[in-house]
Amino acid sequence: MDEIEQFRRYRERMNKRILSANNLGIKRFFALDSRAYEKGVLPTKTKELLGLVASSVLRCNDCIAYHVIRCVQEEVSDEEFFEALNVALVVGGSITIPHIRRAVDLLDQCRKKQSEDQSFEI
Amino acid sequence: MDEIEQFRRYRERMNKRILSANNLGIKRFFALDSRAYEKGVLPTKTKELLGLVASSVLRCNDCIAYHVIRCVQEEVSDEEFFEALNVALVVGGSITIPHIRRAVDLLDQCRKKQSEDQSFEI
Amino acid sequence: MDEIEQFRRYRERMNKRILSANNLGIKRFFALDSRAYEKGVLPTKTKELLGLVASSVLRCNDCIAYHVIRCVQEEVSDEEFFEALNVALVVGGSITIPHIRRAVDLLDQCRKKQSEDQSFEI
Amino acid sequence: MDEIEQFRRYRERMNKRILSANNLGIKRFFALDSRAYEKGVLPTKTKELLGLVASSVLRCNDCIAYHVIRCVQEEVSDEEFFEALNVALVVGGSITIPHIRRAVDLLDQCRKKQSEDQSFEI
Amino acid sequence: MDEIEQFRRYRERMNKRILSANNLGIKRFFALDSRAYEKGVLPTKTKELLGLVASSVLRCNDCIAYHVIRCVQEEVSDEEFFEALNVALVVGGSITIPHIRRAVDLLDQCRKKQSEDQSFEI
Amino acid sequence: MDEIEQFRRYRERMNKRILSANNLGIKRFFALDSRAYEKGVLPTKTKELLGLVASSVLRCNDCIAYHVIRCVQEEVSDEEFFEALNVALVVGGSITIPHIRRAVDLLDQCRKKQSEDQSFEI
Repeated sequence: MDEIEQFRRYRERMNKRILSANNLGIKRFFALDSRAYEKGVLPTKTKELLGLVASSVLRCNDCIAYHVIRCVQEEVSDEEFFEALNVALVVGGSITIPHIRRAVDLLDQCRKKQSEDQSFEI
Repeated sequence: MDEIEQFRRYRERMNKRILSANNLGIKRFFALDSRAYEKGVLPTKTKELLGLVASSVLRCNDCIAYHVIRCVQEEVSDEEFFEALNVALVVGGSITIPHIRRAVDLLDQCRKKQSEDQSFEI
Repeated sequence: MDEIEQFRRYRERMNKRILSANNLGIKRFFALDSRAYEKGVLPTKTKELLGLVASSVLRCNDCIAYHVIRCVQEEVSDEEFFEALNVALVVGGSITIPHIRRAVDLLDQCRKKQSEDQSFEI
Repeated sequence: MDEIEQFRRYRERMNKRILSANNLGIKRFFALDSRAYEKGVLPTKTKELLGLVASSVLRCNDCIAYHVIRCVQEEVSDEEFFEALNVALVVGGSITIPHIRRAVDLLDQCRKKQSEDQSFEI
Repeated sequence: MDEIEQFRRYRERMNKRILSANNLGIKRFFALDSRAYEKGVLPTKTKELLGLVASSVLRCNDCIAYHVIRCVQEEVSDEEFFEALNVALVVGGSITIPHIRRAVDLLDQCRKKQSEDQSFEI
Repeated sequence: MDEIEQFRRYRERMNKRILSANNLGIKRFFALDSRAYEKGVLPTKTKELLGLVASSVLRCNDCIAYHVIRCVQEEVSDEEFFEALNVALVVGGSITIPHIRRAVDLLDQCRKKQSEDQSFEI
């Protein structure tokens, strides 16, 4: 099982477990989180780039993984991807470099999956 | 002198002072910083929104001030502005709220200046 | 007007302004934020101490101000207050010291207000 | 060997190694760290919840692991645990979600160990 | 009263107040904090530069103020100062720039005080 | 293959991949990053200690790994190493302890490699 698939399964399993605890605050937060990236006056693609840059400067690999996959699904091009990462790198500094390595590694894995399977989903 | 003007003058004066120190690394960093927001495959407006969200989740009031002003100049609408801030709020949590208050306060000050003077610049 | 009063007025005015923007995500987040500290299986007092320590290690003066006032209202004693700040100091390190100074300064201002006026509210 | 046991052994081995270096400052810091959670006017249980929330908003998986184990030993109930995590989630935002997944995963592993072995210790 | 003097007085007054609370953990932490910068195998000057860079990447203006003053007292030259700030800028990114402005502003104020009064102390 | 070697290969492979993307901003940032640690008025050894402490308080394991290796190459002694880590621990708090464990673990691995092979390089 590849890394992206592993991430998705752990994420899905644990989200289900957390929501089963019936803490109303946590449930509502998870709902708010999904809705923040839905199309509004800003397109989903722009919002996913916002999520990617925010996750990169805050240096959270799992959040980066999620937004890399979502950016690929929203048809962010490689050039757009690197321009967004450049903003993250300049704002967040060299401390973000290991996370930028991770983001690009996952981008390449997504592109490979895409070329093998058109309908790749999270 | 209003707050925005005060911020601009202090920023300009100190940037000049820092660059006068002739540390080559710092000079180059300042150049990279400006270039990161120039039009590429992503429009400047999108990049400024990336800068605003990154500054908000990292909770830096002066960086927020800079990007609020730049967003206003790039004709970000109020609705776009609040959608971007919502992403920052969800990603960064309630700890960002004081900075979101600041961002909105400055947005309102910019809108006021704009209505008084069309050619407002940083 | 004292510092605590100033903080409360700015906070109240800007929260009203932000909520008036009618961004549904932001409105719901503000509601979630209030509810997180309501009595559950953990008493409000414990939750406010959690909020105080979280704000201190994340080093947000306005969030600290809010939770100091709320702790005073929930009848946190000075000794409890310092034990909670000690946890924040050990976890977050000397970088939190300026914020701990701020917290104690505000605690003293609240105690003074309390001694003058029994029904002090946020 | 399970994950919790692995974490405990690495932690114990490296703490011993670090203390053997005879840096007086580091030794004293480690002592202060232990003492911060000892019963005072606040019970140990409350202090461990403070440690858990602080570790969660600062997003440190190893610190979370330590405080999850300690909370279980201090007989924090699942409901109390989720209410504390909800405060962390609201304060720290969606960037804490991967760490909340980790905390809940470890809680479940601790509960399983507990049901197999009453005297589980760190 | 100048800014540096104001910072010193507030710091001194509040430290005294905090230590008067007789929380043993906090008192010991304050002692550890002072000792960390004392001459060891590394000279105090190097340790103060470590403190300056750590404070800059963690973006704490009061901590920066303290270490700028201490660096001046330890006879850090302007060139050394800017090289250390360049490391902070590269590691921490543009989000540190407002704090670097602050550091340089305070450096200039210290140099001015020094030229007026040889024996300037914190 | 040992951990240090694994880190070096992943780092080298991904850096090459990132630079191949031809984003000018990112390329220049990587150049600035290398230059920041070159000998100036401060020796490289001092700059690497600055990098180590900055990485420790920002809690980035990969950045810590890089600077540990570089410190060993610059002939930082164990005592100097622990004094620098003590500054990081005091500034950054107990939340840095897992990263300090990691730094010391890697230091020990480097020392072992050094004793086996005099010319060890990154």
